[in-house]
Amino acid sequence: MSNNQNLVAPQWQEPSQARFLTLLSDFGDRDVYVGAIKGVITQINPKLTIVDLTHQIPPQDIVAARFSLMNVYPYFPTGTVHVAVVDPGVGSKRRAIAVEFAQGFLVGPDNGIFSGVLSQSPAIAAVELTNLNYWRTQQPSKTFHGRDIFAPVAAHLTSGVPLKQLGQEIEPATLVKLDIGECKKTANGVVGCIQYIDHFGNLVSNIPESYVRGKTWYVQAAGLTIPGGETYSDVKAGEAIALVGSHGWIEIAINSGNAHLQLQINLQDALSVINH
Amino acid sequence: MSNNQNLVAPQWQEPSQARFLTLLSDFGDRDVYVGAIKGVITQINPKLTIVDLTHQIPPQDIVAARFSLMNVYPYFPTGTVHVAVVDPGVGSKRRAIAVEFAQGFLVGPDNGIFSGVLSQSPAIAAVELTNLNYWRTQQPSKTFHGRDIFAPVAAHLTSGVPLKQLGQEIEPATLVKLDIGECKKTANGVVGCIQYIDHFGNLVSNIPESYVRGKTWYVQAAGLTIPGGETYSDVKAGEAIALVGSHGWIEIAINSGNAHLQLQINLQDALSVINH
Amino acid sequence: MSNNQNLVAPQWQEPSQARFLTLLSDFGDRDVYVGAIKGVITQINPKLTIVDLTHQIPPQDIVAARFSLMNVYPYFPTGTVHVAVVDPGVGSKRRAIAVEFAQGFLVGPDNGIFSGVLSQSPAIAAVELTNLNYWRTQQPSKTFHGRDIFAPVAAHLTSGVPLKQLGQEIEPATLVKLDIGECKKTANGVVGCIQYIDHFGNLVSNIPESYVRGKTWYVQAAGLTIPGGETYSDVKAGEAIALVGSHGWIEIAINSGNAHLQLQINLQDALSVINH
Repeated sequence: MSNNQNLVAPQWQEPSQARFLTLLSDFGDRDVYVGAIKGVITQINPKLTIVDLTHQIPPQDIVAARFSLMNVYPYFPTGTVHVAVVDPGVGSKRRAIAVEFAQGFLVGPDNGIFSGVLSQSPAIAAVELTNLNYWRTQQPSKTFHGRDIFAPVAAHLTSGVPLKQLGQEIEPATLVKLDIGECKKTANGVVGCIQYIDHFGNLVSNIPESYVRGKTWYVQAAGLTIPGGETYSDVKAGEAIALVGSHGWIEIAINSGNAHLQLQINLQDALSVINH
Repeated sequence: MSNNQNLVAPQWQEPSQARFLTLLSDFGDRDVYVGAIKGVITQINPKLTIVDLTHQIPPQDIVAARFSLMNVYPYFPTGTVHVAVVDPGVGSKRRAIAVEFAQGFLVGPDNGIFSGVLSQSPAIAAVELTNLNYWRTQQPSKTFHGRDIFAPVAAHLTSGVPLKQLGQEIEPATLVKLDIGECKKTANGVVGCIQYIDHFGNLVSNIPESYVRGKTWYVQAAGLTIPGGETYSDVKAGEAIALVGSHGWIEIAINSGNAHLQLQINLQDALSVINH
Repeated sequence: MSNNQNLVAPQWQEPSQARFLTLLSDFGDRDVYVGAIKGVITQINPKLTIVDLTHQIPPQDIVAARFSLMNVYPYFPTGTVHVAVVDPGVGSKRRAIAVEFAQGFLVGPDNGIFSGVLSQSPAIAAVELTNLNYWRTQQPSKTFHGRDIFAPVAAHLTSGVPLKQLGQEIEPATLVKLDIGECKKTANGVVGCIQYIDHFGNLVSNIPESYVRGKTWYVQAAGLTIPGGETYSDVKAGEAIALVGSHGWIEIAINSGNAHLQLQINLQDALSVINH
């Protein structure tokens, strides 16, 4: 046959659009809110892979949501669309937004939830979601914009709809930022605070690892002196250690234990890193 | 080349069968029951997208399962197969069923779990799952029909097996219904009860939004008078509000709070909507 | 047209590599550890289907992880890659391994987590993960090998990288085993212990169903005599029953109740099966 080559099964062609959409929320996993969101998305883009980041953000805790998204977006392919819905102001005047940044897109409420990501990788463009054609319904629920606005808009983004068709352009500089406290250099180290407590009870500070790189150091917190190390098993089971956590922040842990419960250290409590 | 057009990569052809299967259960997420179900399904139809609606239905709570499924099925593509397994009568004489309705298929125990869906969108046909050829094994576990009967039968449905091959036809009118109490019109409004409490502590009644549409109204419950509004932020943080929830039922919430815990209102407690 | 056949859309060709990867861990679902792992995997093999078995293994509980994986792997297609990360020794000298067995591959720490699977289906080959080219980074986090070593190595396995390229071969006989206690035949039955408690409070023993097959039997535990039966509804609601659970182990349950809470029987407590 002269056209034998045509019988070779062609590779399935990936569309040029996004293939991944992540979801982060405080909806929990008992109710079907997340299920409804996924149904809406699959109706618009059935070929998409949806990845749940977490739906266990404490209710209305924008600070935890901001931290979580900031620490996970770098692991996803460029072009991924991240939908984050912790939205105590739903139905009020807070803006609904979509943001383009170097690694992909962000869709959710303009309440500071994206301000951690954007402090690392600035917004390229942003819109307020005013184009009702991309909503699920022109009369969205007053309490569930996740299903009626954010999910369908994000699904359309993954299908190749340009950001600027989704609504009115806004200045990235006007996006809401969350103030979570900064860490401050001291004579012999740095002072910061606990910004997140994880499922293991590890106490994650707002002090980046650059402050301890190549140094010997220890931590003082809640009247305790905690040695700086590299991994949990640098101390005996039950003992406290400070180390660089997997997201790159100084954290306090207990080997085979729960530092939050056992050390009685809480969110926003202060800690000092001391070089010696 | 004369046959240049053949070099254009063809679109991948979707099979005509269902592409989506949802799972809802009381299996929780600590054990590997749901994992086993997914393994069984992927062996039969590896191209399917499986969506978890929730596995956190309180153990054996058919009422909560019925409510959840009824409120989420409308968001999925037509043809979706919904598997729901809250099954305190597993291994007893309760029937195992598959039901066809306008939006897709339902697979699970005949204990009323589907009666909410079918009250909105009636059954077109139903079978008892008596054809052992579509089970995982001819000697299924007496305690886990989810894995051995419902999952494989549902996966075969998504692969295009006709409903009527799955077993003996039964009259849709004989399917078990759950009585969850009806709401009753009063002189100046309607009386109903709480039928579901969500993760945020919002108290969802069995009163549909049609009773308040275009009216001014308030709610009385547990000796409290609660204003009717549109969204949480219509009242101050910490204050109670009644509104139309995202599923279309009147619900009681507290702005930035938990109405269930703070108002001491429980499942099946009465509430009145009063027009004024 | 002479080459009409070329217009028929060809089937999409499955690659010969694995299509399924499962995840099991103690990471919980509040943090974004699992999300990071999924991001890393999707960057390497975007076409893969990732199935969460559970992330709710109690922190550092290798025994529960071993039990869970052993009971779920048989339901997955041959060739599936199972990643299991319950890893209290992360960053210490415990080996990171990948194992080939008849049903697929296992990737995780060498701490006994795979010893249940391998007691049923022996290792064919094993490697220590010493080839840094398949890690996410040559300087992995000291506390999160799940993201930096196990996830990328497993994703490469699904893409067709041969096991033996992943590191130095090791003798399967040297893999760590967990001792979970054996059951012992007695004059009139068998004595064992509780090895797992599930979400419903069912008490799962280490006694396989072969000891009761075709026999009449009952169980003694915590001073109680519990009848042997087939399914929960063989006794009245609220009453205890012993039966063969869905994984094939003798277990103690309460019809419509929680045996763990109501009978005060715990992990590692003894029970006797008595034939009569």
